[in-house]
Amino acid sequence: MVTVSLGKALSVIPYPKVQLDKLPSTLKPDDANKTYQPKLDRIRRSQYPYLRELTYLDHAGTTLYPLLSLRNTVQLLSGSCMGNPHSISQCSQTSTHIVQEARNVVYSLLDADPDEYDVIFVSNASQGVKLVVEGFKDTFEDFDYVYSIDSHTSLIGPRTVAKHFKCFKDPYSVVEEYSLEMPQRPVLVSWTGQSNFTGERFPISQYNVLFKSISSKVYTLLDAASLSTSKPPSLRSFNSLARPDFVVLSLYKVLGYPDIGALVCKKSAGSYVFSGKKYFSGGTVEQVALYSDYAKRNLELHSILEEGTLPIHTLAALVSSYKAFLSLYGSFFNISDHVSYIAGEAYAQMSNLVHNNGVSLVRFYGSETYGDSNLHGPIIAFNLFDSSGEPIGYYKVEKAAFKNNICLRVGAMCNYGGLMQHLGSKDAQILNEAQVCNFTCGDENDIVDDVEKRHRGVVRISFGAMTSEKDIQILIRMLSEFISIS
Amino acid sequence: MVTVSLGKALSVIPYPKVQLDKLPSTLKPDDANKTYQPKLDRIRRSQYPYLRELTYLDHAGTTLYPLLSLRNTVQLLSGSCMGNPHSISQCSQTSTHIVQEARNVVYSLLDADPDEYDVIFVSNASQGVKLVVEGFKDTFEDFDYVYSIDSHTSLIGPRTVAKHFKCFKDPYSVVEEYSLEMPQRPVLVSWTGQSNFTGERFPISQYNVLFKSISSKVYTLLDAASLSTSKPPSLRSFNSLARPDFVVLSLYKVLGYPDIGALVCKKSAGSYVFSGKKYFSGGTVEQVALYSDYAKRNLELHSILEEGTLPIHTLAALVSSYKAFLSLYGSFFNISDHVSYIAGEAYAQMSNLVHNNGVSLVRFYGSETYGDSNLHGPIIAFNLFDSSGEPIGYYKVEKAAFKNNICLRVGAMCNYGGLMQHLGSKDAQILNEAQVCNFTCGDENDIVDDVEKRHRGVVRISFGAMTSEKDIQILIRMLSEFISIS
Repeated sequence: MVTVSLGKALSVIPYPKVQLDKLPSTLKPDDANKTYQPKLDRIRRSQYPYLRELTYLDHAGTTLYPLLSLRNTVQLLSGSCMGNPHSISQCSQTSTHIVQEARNVVYSLLDADPDEYDVIFVSNASQGVKLVVEGFKDTFEDFDYVYSIDSHTSLIGPRTVAKHFKCFKDPYSVVEEYSLEMPQRPVLVSWTGQSNFTGERFPISQYNVLFKSISSKVYTLLDAASLSTSKPPSLRSFNSLARPDFVVLSLYKVLGYPDIGALVCKKSAGSYVFSGKKYFSGGTVEQVALYSDYAKRNLELHSILEEGTLPIHTLAALVSSYKAFLSLYGSFFNISDHVSYIAGEAYAQMSNLVHNNGVSLVRFYGSETYGDSNLHGPIIAFNLFDSSGEPIGYYKVEKAAFKNNICLRVGAMCNYGGLMQHLGSKDAQILNEAQVCNFTCGDENDIVDDVEKRHRGVVRISFGAMTSEKDIQILIRMLSEFISIS
Repeated sequence: MVTVSLGKALSVIPYPKVQLDKLPSTLKPDDANKTYQPKLDRIRRSQYPYLRELTYLDHAGTTLYPLLSLRNTVQLLSGSCMGNPHSISQCSQTSTHIVQEARNVVYSLLDADPDEYDVIFVSNASQGVKLVVEGFKDTFEDFDYVYSIDSHTSLIGPRTVAKHFKCFKDPYSVVEEYSLEMPQRPVLVSWTGQSNFTGERFPISQYNVLFKSISSKVYTLLDAASLSTSKPPSLRSFNSLARPDFVVLSLYKVLGYPDIGALVCKKSAGSYVFSGKKYFSGGTVEQVALYSDYAKRNLELHSILEEGTLPIHTLAALVSSYKAFLSLYGSFFNISDHVSYIAGEAYAQMSNLVHNNGVSLVRFYGSETYGDSNLHGPIIAFNLFDSSGEPIGYYKVEKAAFKNNICLRVGAMCNYGGLMQHLGSKDAQILNEAQVCNFTCGDENDIVDDVEKRHRGVVRISFGAMTSEKDIQILIRMLSEFISIS
């Protein structure tokens, strides 16, 4: 790596600079009074031409990019030659500068302190989790792994390489268990900030303080992938003890584009957890001997962990896309406000759908706190029932949605804790079903016919910055088709 | 996963379809007579506006995208709503279709048979190597790792987790060693198709047959990252025994954009090597139990290995970018032809640079077979010497290049086998230098002053589809500044 004066070198480059350090944090309270609601129709028309025929209700899968994100990206990529970073050449320095700006995007989005946290770019949140686990394996060999029942399967995978694992619903049960016997080995405790199944939100600071109180051997990992789609956590708003050691998120779930994720890692925790890292690739080492096993590692955490060439053009797109989102919607405070309103509205209207005999068409799963952004994200998980209370298969709903150009999701949402808590499925049933009926998530085999009939999964709808009331009307009209009129 | 008639569903989607199955393989011999050379100036003016002020000679780092790649991408992304794949919804099926087309791009690029190979998308070649190694660790626990001396450090990293490792220069030495004692455990043998240091090319089929002849326990991995930038291997042109089990490449090195890599994996080898895979994430499992460690894995190799959401938009960009490259340049046969010519030309002109006393300014490293695309890729590694034969530090060359708006690279190129073979550095020196002088690759500390002065690294220039003769003239003019005129 060559140390040169970046400022001087960059001044000769015809490259549209973005002053990200001047950007507001995403949750600045003085944005509270602003809203983009009145101009949403205009934003939809000009920025989302591909939504003209579609009603998109799968923002928890990924939200959607405005054209401005693409245009900003093309402008940046057309005007700049981006080379391999860390050299003296113009195109290399352009890249170095863009990489730093992309890290600033993540700092800004999570309101994180660059002195406390490092940003490591990964493909997606799942890869971020895997990277942390790799650190645990290398440095400690054995470790315990603890995950919340509301986890996405990507948060369950680490158990495959842990010495012991535990799934918890009540965080106090973890504290209790370890109070009987203090942890013998390091423990990685993870939970999701928001269930990608029901949309319920779980406290960050409270959980973190609790887990950290067990022992200094406990490290915490927050899966912020689902939560961040509309309400990225504001790390600076918690005190130091309340801030997780590791935070993972998928930036395409936040901005729609580009496809990249980040592991945001407390430097203090990371420098210990990754101190035993074995594997290396191109950018992570400075020098390598050929016949002995000597390799001189890079020093900075992100340099140690980002293996292979950084995705420069994707990072340029991240910078462009973040600017586009903020210029259209003002702040994530506004977006959170908007989607809370939409979720509350959808819930209210769906609750009103009743069969002629008074039986409700819709059953909701999870706490029905839609509209309260502290307790619930913009996700609604539900199923339909006919007028005699018998379940209507979710595959039927999906087919009706397809006919009505509505994009939604059905099945387990890669969240089997969701099924367990809300549809009463048990580990034994999951094993049995996999062996006996060769069920795969989301297929036509959507009703279990045991003692009584029950749904095998749910219908999930989820909202984003550009979801409008008209989208909800179209959904309600489609759902109304299931109301018994006899 | 839902099985629906894709064709029918897609017919309702306003999505510009790309018929990739009709694309030619990249090396079709009947392209041989076509060339884009006469219209290169026009291509440069219209497609690479950001090159107006710059001379870009680091295509081995990454080549450069034409504007058409960006335009095609924006057109595709503006016209389509891409959701999470594998559902019945319109936007989900659009994504499923694009993912398949992106896999077809890789099949087409490497002229690989989809019945024999699977395509697994990864961040870059380094991640592809890591994925293979992870399979070895999980399935076999212990394994031997063998790599060629010309490897990029990313191909050296696997030794950190292998039981034993060996670095080879002569492939027959590997065969010899194992002929004394047959391998006790599985062996992964890897080599690069082209040195990213000197540009020398190494035979694929010959090496593969040789290594496979040792034992059925031997698996082969070809690092095609550097080779593919101008001459992707045509796998179908080799017989079955001559085709490597694993091939990794970085597609941004081939097309400039987008940032994605691929692991191309023989299904027969992959289904065994990855059979013990432990870790899982979202998309790689169909069902998961919460309290026991049961997880139902997906069946297809790419589904098992692609952890987390696939980068849909990046894959759409890959499809667009590949089409753009082919429409501008015709085929990779043409590109290979062009860069061979440019490399030959550059070599000839650089060879003519001599000081007034007759001493050569430039010393080349590696076989001087520039221009022969079977033996050499479009990379030239060199250093400069003054009229008394003393080395001129590469950092001086880099600074002169910066002043002349030329982008090139200096240092070790993450290739310490290159240094060892061509600059005479030894493992012991590498250790010593790292400890004593805190040297980092490419810094000002570019001359070793031992018994006699010598360079600590090289200057590397490399060429791509859009490199023109004018670029070479600018380079020569800059190098001429170093000619002693006294």
